[in-house]
Amino acid sequence: MFADIKGLNEECGVFGIWGHPDAVQITYYGLHSLQHRGQEGAGIVATDGNSLKGIRGEGLVNDVFNKSNLASLPGQNAIGHVKYGGADKGGLENVQPLLFHSSSGSLALAQNGNLINALDLKHQLEMQGSIFQSTSDTEVLAHLIKRSGYLATKDKVKNALSMVKGAYALALLTEEELIIALDPNGLRPLSIGRIGDAYCVSSETCAFDLIGAEFVRDVEPGELIIINDEGLYSEPFSLSTSSAMCSMEYVYFSRPDSDIQGINIHTARKNLGKVLAKEVNIDADVVTGVPDSSISAAIGFAETTGIPYEIGLIKNRYVGRTFIKPSQELREQGVKMKLSPVRKVVEGKRVVMVDDSIVRGTTSKRIVKMLKEAGATEVHVCISSPPMKHPCFYGIDVSSHEELMASAHSVDEMCDIIGADSLTFLSVEGMLEAIGRKGYGKNCGQCTACFTGEYPTEIYPDTLLPYEKEMSRS
Amino acid sequence: MFADIKGLNEECGVFGIWGHPDAVQITYYGLHSLQHRGQEGAGIVATDGNSLKGIRGEGLVNDVFNKSNLASLPGQNAIGHVKYGGADKGGLENVQPLLFHSSSGSLALAQNGNLINALDLKHQLEMQGSIFQSTSDTEVLAHLIKRSGYLATKDKVKNALSMVKGAYALALLTEEELIIALDPNGLRPLSIGRIGDAYCVSSETCAFDLIGAEFVRDVEPGELIIINDEGLYSEPFSLSTSSAMCSMEYVYFSRPDSDIQGINIHTARKNLGKVLAKEVNIDADVVTGVPDSSISAAIGFAETTGIPYEIGLIKNRYVGRTFIKPSQELREQGVKMKLSPVRKVVEGKRVVMVDDSIVRGTTSKRIVKMLKEAGATEVHVCISSPPMKHPCFYGIDVSSHEELMASAHSVDEMCDIIGADSLTFLSVEGMLEAIGRKGYGKNCGQCTACFTGEYPTEIYPDTLLPYEKEMSRS
Amino acid sequence: MFADIKGLNEECGVFGIWGHPDAVQITYYGLHSLQHRGQEGAGIVATDGNSLKGIRGEGLVNDVFNKSNLASLPGQNAIGHVKYGGADKGGLENVQPLLFHSSSGSLALAQNGNLINALDLKHQLEMQGSIFQSTSDTEVLAHLIKRSGYLATKDKVKNALSMVKGAYALALLTEEELIIALDPNGLRPLSIGRIGDAYCVSSETCAFDLIGAEFVRDVEPGELIIINDEGLYSEPFSLSTSSAMCSMEYVYFSRPDSDIQGINIHTARKNLGKVLAKEVNIDADVVTGVPDSSISAAIGFAETTGIPYEIGLIKNRYVGRTFIKPSQELREQGVKMKLSPVRKVVEGKRVVMVDDSIVRGTTSKRIVKMLKEAGATEVHVCISSPPMKHPCFYGIDVSSHEELMASAHSVDEMCDIIGADSLTFLSVEGMLEAIGRKGYGKNCGQCTACFTGEYPTEIYPDTLLPYEKEMSRS
Amino acid sequence: MFADIKGLNEECGVFGIWGHPDAVQITYYGLHSLQHRGQEGAGIVATDGNSLKGIRGEGLVNDVFNKSNLASLPGQNAIGHVKYGGADKGGLENVQPLLFHSSSGSLALAQNGNLINALDLKHQLEMQGSIFQSTSDTEVLAHLIKRSGYLATKDKVKNALSMVKGAYALALLTEEELIIALDPNGLRPLSIGRIGDAYCVSSETCAFDLIGAEFVRDVEPGELIIINDEGLYSEPFSLSTSSAMCSMEYVYFSRPDSDIQGINIHTARKNLGKVLAKEVNIDADVVTGVPDSSISAAIGFAETTGIPYEIGLIKNRYVGRTFIKPSQELREQGVKMKLSPVRKVVEGKRVVMVDDSIVRGTTSKRIVKMLKEAGATEVHVCISSPPMKHPCFYGIDVSSHEELMASAHSVDEMCDIIGADSLTFLSVEGMLEAIGRKGYGKNCGQCTACFTGEYPTEIYPDTLLPYEKEMSRS
Repeated sequence: MFADIKGLNEECGVFGIWGHPDAVQITYYGLHSLQHRGQEGAGIVATDGNSLKGIRGEGLVNDVFNKSNLASLPGQNAIGHVKYGGADKGGLENVQPLLFHSSSGSLALAQNGNLINALDLKHQLEMQGSIFQSTSDTEVLAHLIKRSGYLATKDKVKNALSMVKGAYALALLTEEELIIALDPNGLRPLSIGRIGDAYCVSSETCAFDLIGAEFVRDVEPGELIIINDEGLYSEPFSLSTSSAMCSMEYVYFSRPDSDIQGINIHTARKNLGKVLAKEVNIDADVVTGVPDSSISAAIGFAETTGIPYEIGLIKNRYVGRTFIKPSQELREQGVKMKLSPVRKVVEGKRVVMVDDSIVRGTTSKRIVKMLKEAGATEVHVCISSPPMKHPCFYGIDVSSHEELMASAHSVDEMCDIIGADSLTFLSVEGMLEAIGRKGYGKNCGQCTACFTGEYPTEIYPDTLLPYEKEMSRS
Repeated sequence: MFADIKGLNEECGVFGIWGHPDAVQITYYGLHSLQHRGQEGAGIVATDGNSLKGIRGEGLVNDVFNKSNLASLPGQNAIGHVKYGGADKGGLENVQPLLFHSSSGSLALAQNGNLINALDLKHQLEMQGSIFQSTSDTEVLAHLIKRSGYLATKDKVKNALSMVKGAYALALLTEEELIIALDPNGLRPLSIGRIGDAYCVSSETCAFDLIGAEFVRDVEPGELIIINDEGLYSEPFSLSTSSAMCSMEYVYFSRPDSDIQGINIHTARKNLGKVLAKEVNIDADVVTGVPDSSISAAIGFAETTGIPYEIGLIKNRYVGRTFIKPSQELREQGVKMKLSPVRKVVEGKRVVMVDDSIVRGTTSKRIVKMLKEAGATEVHVCISSPPMKHPCFYGIDVSSHEELMASAHSVDEMCDIIGADSLTFLSVEGMLEAIGRKGYGKNCGQCTACFTGEYPTEIYPDTLLPYEKEMSRS
Repeated sequence: MFADIKGLNEECGVFGIWGHPDAVQITYYGLHSLQHRGQEGAGIVATDGNSLKGIRGEGLVNDVFNKSNLASLPGQNAIGHVKYGGADKGGLENVQPLLFHSSSGSLALAQNGNLINALDLKHQLEMQGSIFQSTSDTEVLAHLIKRSGYLATKDKVKNALSMVKGAYALALLTEEELIIALDPNGLRPLSIGRIGDAYCVSSETCAFDLIGAEFVRDVEPGELIIINDEGLYSEPFSLSTSSAMCSMEYVYFSRPDSDIQGINIHTARKNLGKVLAKEVNIDADVVTGVPDSSISAAIGFAETTGIPYEIGLIKNRYVGRTFIKPSQELREQGVKMKLSPVRKVVEGKRVVMVDDSIVRGTTSKRIVKMLKEAGATEVHVCISSPPMKHPCFYGIDVSSHEELMASAHSVDEMCDIIGADSLTFLSVEGMLEAIGRKGYGKNCGQCTACFTGEYPTEIYPDTLLPYEKEMSRS
Repeated sequence: MFADIKGLNEECGVFGIWGHPDAVQITYYGLHSLQHRGQEGAGIVATDGNSLKGIRGEGLVNDVFNKSNLASLPGQNAIGHVKYGGADKGGLENVQPLLFHSSSGSLALAQNGNLINALDLKHQLEMQGSIFQSTSDTEVLAHLIKRSGYLATKDKVKNALSMVKGAYALALLTEEELIIALDPNGLRPLSIGRIGDAYCVSSETCAFDLIGAEFVRDVEPGELIIINDEGLYSEPFSLSTSSAMCSMEYVYFSRPDSDIQGINIHTARKNLGKVLAKEVNIDADVVTGVPDSSISAAIGFAETTGIPYEIGLIKNRYVGRTFIKPSQELREQGVKMKLSPVRKVVEGKRVVMVDDSIVRGTTSKRIVKMLKEAGATEVHVCISSPPMKHPCFYGIDVSSHEELMASAHSVDEMCDIIGADSLTFLSVEGMLEAIGRKGYGKNCGQCTACFTGEYPTEIYPDTLLPYEKEMSRS
């Protein structure tokens, strides 16, 4: 999970808790368990009901927080955020939660997702005098909330959300309450838990297991939830909702011990491997998975085909930012960075290499080559999801067709390019069947846009390009 | 592997290379791949043929080294070391390689293993005027080498080794040569590789894969090898050798992608699981392994029994020393440190939990409880090695019977204590069969002392206790 | 200068440069020489004409910047800032320069001073939809600039400055230009220098000496200066200007090697000591100064009286934030923090202790006690400025009468409280004469508000208190 | 004092305390006040009577120690050390106190000075089997102590000291006692203080003032002192003693608030300036001193001549190792590193620049140039010590004639080279008179070897060169 080897990046995780004496520490552990969703920055804002105070920093959760700065945060209520951000979207100013002060009170905001009309909104806000310190669309949302004429914070938030489009799982903290909201398509996961008398909220349920909380329920698409000293209240903020949970959360992003809408990620992935096994017909000696995210699918694939599962690839766990990267020279001499083949396992064998997805194809090509150099006689690449042909506008860092190998090439061409003996993708139907959310409506309540081009929301084709240049998503 | 959850600790890894322009960087990568063998300290000493210079520090490889201090090390030749060390054996002075200067030249020494007569030797040396800055037995060995009357370094080393008893895989660096040696029982792994024209040596072969070296051969018991600008020369330093490779290297310590004496660790572990599966008869719904070291055995177990393998336990990867540990209070509230159960996978299921060994039993007890609280209806614990009843004097941190649950309790009692529905250990014969080194002599050339009490070397029962208090092993 | 011992804090220094290939490094050195003006935070924003990029952090210049983060800043143009900030005004969000992005370009702002109507302006801006991330009045100014209807940045700035009142020395950076401005009373120092073809600007001229720049001229009260690739242009933005340079810049804040309006600080201070010597009549054996800021005055005092100057007090240079403060217990046992007396120098002597000012009186009391315990038979305290009776609203951290000893006590009472044998203050006239800016109009063009209560601008008595609670100055 | 600008380095300070509950913290503060004697490394070893534990590190006292590592040190007794060490004498292994463990107890050793027969002793020890981890002669001394046949530690120390020659101020800690010793010529300062019931020892008395201890007395040449729970005992270990205190301690090394043998350093330096003023006849406008060490002499010079003293040079306090040095390019453009002239003070003036010594002459040349570029019409360099013509073998880092400008050039030639209008040195007689230790025997009990070549001990001309190569002093 940690610092994964894909060119595919989730862009954030949020956590929040209201009414627990160890709120800040618990948020810290919660962010730990969401670390795989964002390794570029982390922050926590906490309140004791009187004021909001925050700590933010670039790097991993462990880089940003220490005993003494955590101890400086007040109170029983907190929200936290982990952030992904490429080179041009980086910078401390983009690390969330963003914190705003005004004479009428403070407000902190953390968001996972992407507002697809953020640039238009930003231009309008600028015309009205707003100024921006970050390139994050979360700051746009904060302006909309603050400018709303309503009195109650929840009404301000609802008013603001009526203007934005896209994917968002939102946590907002004031001196009085914790407000959470999920976009009308429920594109990103967001769940509620309970630890003692305190409610908490997390992008993934794995955080609940770590902190000893019990799972309460998932947040519904278009739902706004207010948590304060009185308890938890829910209100819909949108009447036209339609579940379209990101399929890649099941396929790749989430941790295997998380559940999304009642379905365990490891189980879903194992099923993806099983259905994939049924869709292909390969004669091979061993099945191996690309760690860490494809292990479950590989095990399922092996179970169904009867071909033994083996650890044919090992991930080198160079942790932290301090790792010294090998020079180009050393890399050419064979110094490996992220994966090593297990020679004894693959030597002289026909290998099925199960992976969860192909983005640019460069990683797949490198792994196939590595396996062949280690002695594999054949390498059959089996992908536990369909070809990814379309950019994502909902928070995944694949924003143009150019970056997607499957957008420009047939499966046969891709097989040639990556140097495999065969290449098979799971069908869209197979994927939906394997995840198993039948009865949830269209596409089983999943978003399949990156595979099929059927986007669950409007999109703005002409603004996509400049948009990409100017704004980051969070 | 990283910061594993056992109360069982390997105590070091060594790496060396002679004659490569990037010797220091390669040693750094080599130590990375040996990080699982010691997380308490790391060091590199390098030479350009004129002088030896070293860097040592406490912590992980990435904590100790950075671009600028690595760049300050000279030359084409280097040795490195990663170290384990408990509270009382810690301290910078015990971090290796130790480096000594004299008018006749410098000498650096790194060792994996444990000299069982170190204390006696130390007392004798003190009588003769030696003084000691560390509690490491490597310093004892250095004194013996330096005091030897022979002229050539290799003869000094052979002279010194004739006096020591125990387990050791040794790397010694001078301005002129790299000398490596393995004890007459070959209790610790040590292998030779080649990268370009340069020879390298490593505690485990996984380092070779990472740095792009090819495996040449394992070092033989009682073999001393000199590597210098002329090439590689081997000499036996002991005539009475008898292979007794530590079985726990296969069972637990080594990385799955390493090979020891031609046998891949992952494969050996999977076989341990398969043979274990044949020795028991359990009716269950899922098989799960305790990460990371028991995954291979669990997969083998599942393959043989036909019970599906599932990811039922997830390791929380809190990396580095900066992680803030939960308070006792939070731990009681359920904040988990190292492992979380995957509720959806184990809920309502009869679970086979495969683990590689039981030391004190406290971890096993905790995991069984965790699985049951997560809804497992039955938990059957299957251990892929025999009961560990006897202390190890060869470099594993289990030095008294008191620390070993199996030393004082029957299997049934142990089962009760850990709260499992059944508890099964692999038989010694099953273990040796599964590892598969038939034809290597007694015990298939393995050391089984911790299971059987048959120690391959003399031991000194009356000195064990004070010894333990005073000396650390490396 | 560094981490001085007074309870009196200057609140910032600004530096800027346009058109030099090493702009970022030079700004770094410039901030070093301004370090005494603010030790709580530092930042640099730079531009290559295409975009603005910044680094900010809490702590000293050396804590915030390193080779690699400096190297990441682009271009030939930069501004920088060092910041003071008490406990409640701290936080990374208050570290300057503040950086704002919009579709029409970016803008960075750094300011030394204090806007006395910032709270009123903030309330009005909030009513119009502005939201604030810091408690700094520099953010208020940024909003005013961005909201201005004018097209050119310089006109926006002039428009914004027409609304603010108080003290400010301002540096503003865009992709196209560096704009600097000084309030109509010129309350804070700001000077222009030239290094090669590049213009630079600094709160103090000592930065020019360090970076090898030549002094060009001081910025005039009410002057706005635009520096871009074409050169340097000046425009007045206020017609009613009247020089009122902060007297405490001469007395205490500035570095001895800086010149303000042509007058060297060391020379001014030595003169303060000389004039003070003429105003008193003390029979004593030695003169000593409280380091570092009172040394010059003490030397002047000694020169005029003929009493020998001696080093009777030594400053302990505990540098950085990592210094471990002594426990209360150790402090009571006599462990000293910041000053030690030189026993041999003061023992059995009648000592004149020259200091530049008395704020709360606690430091003076401690030093007198220290000198007496070291054997001084008499301690005559001579202050090289008049009694400080009135709060400052222009950027010095003395904001209420309560904090000022001289506000509630007569000189005789003060003498009793601090335990001195006599206490003398310089007269206001003596101070103005010593500084020597005759012919500059009222009060010789100096602000004497903290001594006389004659504030050079309007003040808002009823808003002072809430203001203080809510806003910080920069 | 801190990181001074000379090419002249003192090589260590020692501190020790026995029987104080806050021994470790007090040692930390003590080392702070000795920081000017060594900025390359620091260490503390402490004991609670049961075991010795130490922390050592490279860098400043504040770099090495923090709250948590200090808290990990046990007990009421401690010794500490700050170390200077050039490039080839550096490395963690040379940082003191050195700590040795043996079955008969532990021993820690810290030393200021230089053993001139260390290399010969080392060769002999190697012949007898000793091995060395550092290049420090303190390790040689430790071997001699440990090898001594005597039973009591104090007798072992006396036995060892009977073999060494040179300069040393020594602190040795065991579980039972703190032993201190000073060489028979008393070449280095070492004083005893008392804080409550605890005795402490320090290289300089300034530490006593800081920690609230009272001065008891100086350690005598050839005296060994044992401090333990019973009290303080003194024994001479040498019968032929003769005071020869290093004159440069008065002239340059020690802190102005320290006293050596009853004479305050600031007072001595002021006297050096006064006597120097009587020896020359210069017509000038201002006197300035090179900070920090020459300020006292300059003030004395000014007082005697009547020429006003001014701050004509300012030291730039770039603290810590993290300071980013200007590139050669920037340095040529005028970016200054350590000193800046105060233009307004020297412009158009005839300047007397008082400095304490000239070593290589390069610094003097640079400062003269700087003053002239800042407008000084004449620069008269007055040195408050005689020409330094001979190397020091007692702990000052000037070990060959080549490094000493005065060794190869007449005063007139030196004046030409440094570009001054005149150059004057204080006479040897003037220096001794100014320091004022009349009645202390030859040379007033001072070592004047670096000026006169009269070394107070034997020296070993033929071993000097190789010695220098191999050994460092401490």
